[in-house]
Amino acid sequence: MKNRKLLLTSRDIETIEGERRVHFLNPKADRIRKSLGDHVGLKNLGVHLVYIEPGSESTEFHKHYTEEECVFVLSGKGTLYIGDEIFPFGEGDFVGFPVDTDAHMIVNDGEEILICLVMGQRLTQDVADYPHKNKRLYRYNGKWDLVDLEAITDPRKPA
Amino acid sequence: MKNRKLLLTSRDIETIEGERRVHFLNPKADRIRKSLGDHVGLKNLGVHLVYIEPGSESTEFHKHYTEEECVFVLSGKGTLYIGDEIFPFGEGDFVGFPVDTDAHMIVNDGEEILICLVMGQRLTQDVADYPHKNKRLYRYNGKWDLVDLEAITDPRKPA
Amino acid sequence: MKNRKLLLTSRDIETIEGERRVHFLNPKADRIRKSLGDHVGLKNLGVHLVYIEPGSESTEFHKHYTEEECVFVLSGKGTLYIGDEIFPFGEGDFVGFPVDTDAHMIVNDGEEILICLVMGQRLTQDVADYPHKNKRLYRYNGKWDLVDLEAITDPRKPA
Amino acid sequence: MKNRKLLLTSRDIETIEGERRVHFLNPKADRIRKSLGDHVGLKNLGVHLVYIEPGSESTEFHKHYTEEECVFVLSGKGTLYIGDEIFPFGEGDFVGFPVDTDAHMIVNDGEEILICLVMGQRLTQDVADYPHKNKRLYRYNGKWDLVDLEAITDPRKPA
Repeated sequence: MKNRKLLLTSRDIETIEGERRVHFLNPKADRIRKSLGDHVGLKNLGVHLVYIEPGSESTEFHKHYTEEECVFVLSGKGTLYIGDEIFPFGEGDFVGFPVDTDAHMIVNDGEEILICLVMGQRLTQDVADYPHKNKRLYRYNGKWDLVDLEAITDPRKPA
Repeated sequence: MKNRKLLLTSRDIETIEGERRVHFLNPKADRIRKSLGDHVGLKNLGVHLVYIEPGSESTEFHKHYTEEECVFVLSGKGTLYIGDEIFPFGEGDFVGFPVDTDAHMIVNDGEEILICLVMGQRLTQDVADYPHKNKRLYRYNGKWDLVDLEAITDPRKPA
Repeated sequence: MKNRKLLLTSRDIETIEGERRVHFLNPKADRIRKSLGDHVGLKNLGVHLVYIEPGSESTEFHKHYTEEECVFVLSGKGTLYIGDEIFPFGEGDFVGFPVDTDAHMIVNDGEEILICLVMGQRLTQDVADYPHKNKRLYRYNGKWDLVDLEAITDPRKPA
Repeated sequence: MKNRKLLLTSRDIETIEGERRVHFLNPKADRIRKSLGDHVGLKNLGVHLVYIEPGSESTEFHKHYTEEECVFVLSGKGTLYIGDEIFPFGEGDFVGFPVDTDAHMIVNDGEEILICLVMGQRLTQDVADYPHKNKRLYRYNGKWDLVDLEAITDPRKPA
């Protein structure tokens, strides 16, 4: 059964030990992740089950400049923040973020666990903004460079 | 509400008219697709709800040489074929196909509709094999070149 | 002098032993190549000195669908064939081939050696046509698939 | 002669008006550029003739993290700086920079003009360091972000 390793049954998924991850810029983004994609050897697609407890957030409010991502809600409900707008977001809902769309996050302000399937490209380079923290992250060649937005200038513009 | 367009609620998804698609090599791969990713403007990730009726197949048995893909089952059950192996495959199960893994398809041999979330990379080029039909498809620059496997030679090998 | 290896002086280049290469589709494309780029460790740019004797051809008449290439003539003169047009082509001349432009080759129909600097992208995938031989080559994942143009169909078109 | 536009004869090249370019971080990097690649429509390869007067420099001392580049000297002589090493560099010499190799520049400290053919990848994203100016440049999505090296932290490391 050499191809059994490509398959994760719902029972397999239950028995995977979730990885607790706290976002480096947001202690409230404290959630459990089971990376389905990693378990079966995907390299260029990130596919994760993310379990968000009531009171927790899916991530730091952020946007990507080069990687696309999207979320499908498997169970529970919460609130989706995009730019300065908010939307109810629960079981069976989907949201996608083409590159350079507004920053976003999901908050579990309900009373039960929120379970999301989060999917995204995995490029060798990406740039992401964390506007609530005033930071930009550049990721390339295995490096992560975090910079305050005020530290950035455009050399093509006169000072 | 400029960001409302990034969101598809479960009610939105119900009201999307599914697109009936029959695989060009397999009349039994007759299924309904709602491309969630396309609806919200994703370009590099394909994210589709696929509805497979009892007796139908998810696609022609195939493998990709350059694009990764994966499937999460939202409801129903069927049988997953990978290479010469078969696996029961139903609600809550996940399967992923790193590049150059064995050919695969899903058959709905149950009695209810099988609903899958199918995700994949969208690269500008891909090569796919359809081993049951003895065909290879090359996709590049908007072209689709379909060839019999017997028509292919390797110029680096002596004849 | 850890960076000495990035440099090839003109004397170094003289002492590199050229690699004789005959194109698999064209015995008259018999030429000597010194791959400057390979010698210094470039991976994504091909940069080659190509020495073409009188009576020889630079390559089989071909075009690329995904890789760009270009040629700068360092010494000698010949004839450049592009599509059904011909041009004198000699020292100090340059030609570039954006993707999907007409097929081309250079013939040394002069009396002295023709030395060209040939540069091109090195992508993980490419498709090239050899219209005089009625062949198409697909290169991907380390494979080279050569096919007669007549063996190719477009599955999107009715038969 | 629809393909004439792909060709630049040596006479064409003479008549192209060079573009004077001064590097935004280095007033001594004041040189004339004729972009052969741009003239014939190449998009993913940069191929430039660069004319450097005595006393001028080819560019600001820099390195790339993601784009490869290389230089072939057509005439003249100067000095090549790579990291903390220097090398004589003149007609017929070649140098190539795989990604993440040491910073470099060429200085025309001779008495005649130095003419180089400079070739490089054109990726949609790049990161470059200017160590003499203590700066890093991130280029992506049409943006150029210039940052002082001291402004950068790695969020994965404890403060």
